[in-house]
Amino acid sequence: MWRSTRIRAIWLDLMKTAVADGKHCLKIRHRIAQCASSHCLSKHQNITYNLNQGCIFTKLQHTKQQPIEETTQKQTCNSFTYRTHTCGELRTINKGQKVTLCGWIQYVRMSKFLLLRDAYGLTQCIISSTDVCLPDIPLETVVKVEGTVALRPKNMENTKMATGEVEVIIDHLEVLNNVDKLPFNLRDYQKPKEQLRLQHRYIDLRFPEMQKNLRLRSNMLHNMRKFLVEEHCFVEIETPTLFCRTPGGAREFIVPTRHSGLFYSLVQSPQQFKQMLMAGAVDRYFQVARCYRDETTRPDRQPEFTQLDIELSFTNLDGVLTLIERLLYDTFNKVLPRPPFRRMTYKDALENYGTDKPNLTYDLRLKNIKHLFPEQLNDENFKAYLLPYPSKFGKVTSKNKDKFRELAKKYKTKIVSNESISKILGSDFVDQIQSITGADNSCIICLGNNEDVSLCLGEVREYLASLLISKNLLSVKENVEPLWVVDFPLFIKGENGLETCHHPFTAPHPDDLKVLETDPLKVRSLAYDIVMNGNEIGGGSVRVHSVTLQEKLLRILNIDGEKLSHFLNALCSGCPPHAGIALGIDRLVSLACDAESIRDVIAFPKSHEGKDPLSGAPNIVNDDDKKYYHIATVD
Amino acid sequence: MWRSTRIRAIWLDLMKTAVADGKHCLKIRHRIAQCASSHCLSKHQNITYNLNQGCIFTKLQHTKQQPIEETTQKQTCNSFTYRTHTCGELRTINKGQKVTLCGWIQYVRMSKFLLLRDAYGLTQCIISSTDVCLPDIPLETVVKVEGTVALRPKNMENTKMATGEVEVIIDHLEVLNNVDKLPFNLRDYQKPKEQLRLQHRYIDLRFPEMQKNLRLRSNMLHNMRKFLVEEHCFVEIETPTLFCRTPGGAREFIVPTRHSGLFYSLVQSPQQFKQMLMAGAVDRYFQVARCYRDETTRPDRQPEFTQLDIELSFTNLDGVLTLIERLLYDTFNKVLPRPPFRRMTYKDALENYGTDKPNLTYDLRLKNIKHLFPEQLNDENFKAYLLPYPSKFGKVTSKNKDKFRELAKKYKTKIVSNESISKILGSDFVDQIQSITGADNSCIICLGNNEDVSLCLGEVREYLASLLISKNLLSVKENVEPLWVVDFPLFIKGENGLETCHHPFTAPHPDDLKVLETDPLKVRSLAYDIVMNGNEIGGGSVRVHSVTLQEKLLRILNIDGEKLSHFLNALCSGCPPHAGIALGIDRLVSLACDAESIRDVIAFPKSHEGKDPLSGAPNIVNDDDKKYYHIATVD
Repeated sequence: MWRSTRIRAIWLDLMKTAVADGKHCLKIRHRIAQCASSHCLSKHQNITYNLNQGCIFTKLQHTKQQPIEETTQKQTCNSFTYRTHTCGELRTINKGQKVTLCGWIQYVRMSKFLLLRDAYGLTQCIISSTDVCLPDIPLETVVKVEGTVALRPKNMENTKMATGEVEVIIDHLEVLNNVDKLPFNLRDYQKPKEQLRLQHRYIDLRFPEMQKNLRLRSNMLHNMRKFLVEEHCFVEIETPTLFCRTPGGAREFIVPTRHSGLFYSLVQSPQQFKQMLMAGAVDRYFQVARCYRDETTRPDRQPEFTQLDIELSFTNLDGVLTLIERLLYDTFNKVLPRPPFRRMTYKDALENYGTDKPNLTYDLRLKNIKHLFPEQLNDENFKAYLLPYPSKFGKVTSKNKDKFRELAKKYKTKIVSNESISKILGSDFVDQIQSITGADNSCIICLGNNEDVSLCLGEVREYLASLLISKNLLSVKENVEPLWVVDFPLFIKGENGLETCHHPFTAPHPDDLKVLETDPLKVRSLAYDIVMNGNEIGGGSVRVHSVTLQEKLLRILNIDGEKLSHFLNALCSGCPPHAGIALGIDRLVSLACDAESIRDVIAFPKSHEGKDPLSGAPNIVNDDDKKYYHIATVD
Repeated sequence: MWRSTRIRAIWLDLMKTAVADGKHCLKIRHRIAQCASSHCLSKHQNITYNLNQGCIFTKLQHTKQQPIEETTQKQTCNSFTYRTHTCGELRTINKGQKVTLCGWIQYVRMSKFLLLRDAYGLTQCIISSTDVCLPDIPLETVVKVEGTVALRPKNMENTKMATGEVEVIIDHLEVLNNVDKLPFNLRDYQKPKEQLRLQHRYIDLRFPEMQKNLRLRSNMLHNMRKFLVEEHCFVEIETPTLFCRTPGGAREFIVPTRHSGLFYSLVQSPQQFKQMLMAGAVDRYFQVARCYRDETTRPDRQPEFTQLDIELSFTNLDGVLTLIERLLYDTFNKVLPRPPFRRMTYKDALENYGTDKPNLTYDLRLKNIKHLFPEQLNDENFKAYLLPYPSKFGKVTSKNKDKFRELAKKYKTKIVSNESISKILGSDFVDQIQSITGADNSCIICLGNNEDVSLCLGEVREYLASLLISKNLLSVKENVEPLWVVDFPLFIKGENGLETCHHPFTAPHPDDLKVLETDPLKVRSLAYDIVMNGNEIGGGSVRVHSVTLQEKLLRILNIDGEKLSHFLNALCSGCPPHAGIALGIDRLVSLACDAESIRDVIAFPKSHEGKDPLSGAPNIVNDDDKKYYHIATVD
């Protein structure tokens, strides 16, 4: 099954090109056959594809080899409607057919030619009689056209259009609905600003890019479901969103009820439920789950978001990692390396990349240079790192220096740029550095008396990489580079004692259990994150299944076990060992679509501060509702 | 594809039997082959089945006829775990294999025999050495057993167990987690009360029935998705749940935000979003959507529930009805009549069955007898109906009469039982009635001066039917009887003027548009409900796509259009004609599972008044949270 994804990825890529430059799908078919042969397919791949839908479903055949053939027999975009074809469907083979198309008027030329658009493409329709003109209909009017398919005259074919070899001679045109003047035009070259797009999302969705993104999202989730349900017997179970507050997590929205003073919380994830399902012998669970976090003050966060939530019993860390590698390898639309994916400890990630979600598509690495500061060698707090970069980059500009100053301030560190090393650290130092960075490289140094020195230089790394890439001084891998980050610390120091690094139900690393109570900050956990190109795509952990251990962890975290009594009861009812993960679908699909923002892969996203640009929500509610819910507004 | 469902239904039924009586699946395979032939399958059905999963996926092959064969090659319940088999999987063919099973201890006998249970079945494990005894482990402890599969001694096979021909000779037994004393045992014959089951749902879920229900739900939704996505190019799109209030609908939960005085509403359905998607050229939408209604005061209602929400453009009433008929016919696990399903007008349903969701599995019908009251023939308000029933039923008891009195009071009508007709309506009347009901029938009469007379007798019909069925005096069809109810009124009289019967976006019947403003109560709508065995499974309508008509309807309903300006803007942006439906998944799956309550097909349902029996939610929230959300609790 794995290899099918390769083909699908290549196919999708080719299809994009094909749609863009109007090349015929025969070429694609040929290329797929080539790939199939070059991937030494041991099992025959039956590939159903359909240019209309812009999607592809792979099916594994365990029977004998068959030729790959185009078939749209099973799939139809036109069932249950009064159109016969979509606007992306007609080809020379349809010549002479009576057809009915429905769509939006994209363009009218000479009162004769009408370009009709729907989600699937564009078709040219014309009035053949020289005496009749098209009525004066505004663009974006939605119409029904009945007519006959004809070949375009010789040399009049449009090779940039999938339907460019044919046109529809209009017999009958019906306006299905009128259109007012729109706030913006459906022209890619004059795309409106995001605020306006979101405010009129029902128009914005007509852009081919939004159509592509939403359809790709739907197909990707569908393929994930097929992988989980059909190939690996997972059960999709819907869990409640109206629940009680989870202690020690993100801020949760509250929902007043008609019982005075009593509130639900909107779940930040199905974590407790999925663990209770494991106790309940539902041993292979997943859910495409809606989750809620009140993080409306952070940019690029949505108050509600979607995660693919997975949990299974009788497994371990390797089990979950393998499952996710196969799932992604089979369903992600881009080329991924063959599993197993690379793994890196949290410590190594910080030491080499200054972040727990390193982007490995380019090769820039931090180097620890604490040994160059012999006087501070025994000072545990002191840290020093350098970041080498090609000298060809030239001098850092004053704009760059401003950025460095900003980061140094944020992390309370000192950043020394290449030009200042001699002046600040001494000329002896320059030679030592040179031997570390190599002759063709300059470097930036970051030092300070806290843990965040490498984090600071990690941000410098990302900033510098984008500059280097724009100047063609750093090569970037085209493929997606997935990475597991493991061995996270179990706890971090918080304002009021220890806090959990993942969530309170994460299992400690068995090798570190002996220091759990004596040196908790040294304890690693069995948590893992999957990172792609610098984005955290998901994370999970092996869970605590022993009630004794769970109670101990809650005590260390100063969390009142009473509030989790239902959960603790589940653990001591015969709860099996289990582990799981949650993948952030919005982020994953953004990567799949090359979208700049997660808002481009969400049909109706909220904008800044959780506002709905369409309806204006959140809104004022009337006094009756407040009374019903026993609440009053206070400032 | 349609016929495959027949086979699946038969298969599932047979499988249930097979699991219950331990018969071998060869018999099932034979039966399927028989059915395939008796249904004259023109296309070959490749059926993948897997006794472990208790499910089956049908796949339509467009290639040449092939023998139906058992294949579990592709599906595995054991991937990514440290078990080799489930507890329902081992057969004589596994003899001699080293296996690892994980599960719960269901039963221990003679300190030698251990019955291990997981979600997939039961397996007997034994200690072969006469010197060793099983340790004293409490029931429901979760263990891992490594051992060797052996055939049970002759005449010791258990024909009631799917794995009853084999046992596992234990090499190694590991306790994976301990268990405290449980609040109830996992014994079908001593099932606890629902309140206790819900309070400890993580134990209750281990009952085979709950396992079956949740897995059936997952499979049914998966098959629905496959039908919509793979066969008919629908796109699944997730829409927000945090939105603004929809005027004129059910009570919506409100969610305070950190902006003082501003609240989201939790959506009661994705109605507005899906219509805006249609305006946005997403012409074939669906979503398995979480919806919220604050109806916690009504029994058997959940504050959150799931609907299969569907909308499509360029279609009409027949288009949607056909789509849903095929969807259900292909994916519902019980035998349905071949589409098209029966249709009935709202008027006929009320006239003949006294309800808009008649149960047609038994044949009891109301008869209008207004003509027997010549003096009141011109009184529009006066209604009179009778309900015939077999005289064999005998006298109505005083308990029955109490029920009639209760209903008469509820509907403000008069109910006359068979015994009292002569006394109350006169002896002349008896003969006239007899000629209507027929010689072998008695009847109940209901009369009064309001619209609700038939509704009242409709409730009597249902009550009486259950009595007649229990006495074997009324035959009930085994199959599910689906029914479309159409031609609903557009408006109903409310306390403050006209209210919508469906929702404010429902299109009026085109034949009645002429009286929309002069006689609105006479206007029928293009709404439709699908009813199965007396349950409303779903409903939808053709929508208004003209902004002028929509504004007119809002005026009639006295709804402030300002609050829907985003929606009205969408209608005049070139919104295509569209229609849709929503199916209540909880109710539909209940029917599929023969569950008594929708709570039996929901993993973690709320109990009475929206309380969560597990966590006790809704709960008190702390003052910090209230302050953050600018609210105070008032009585």
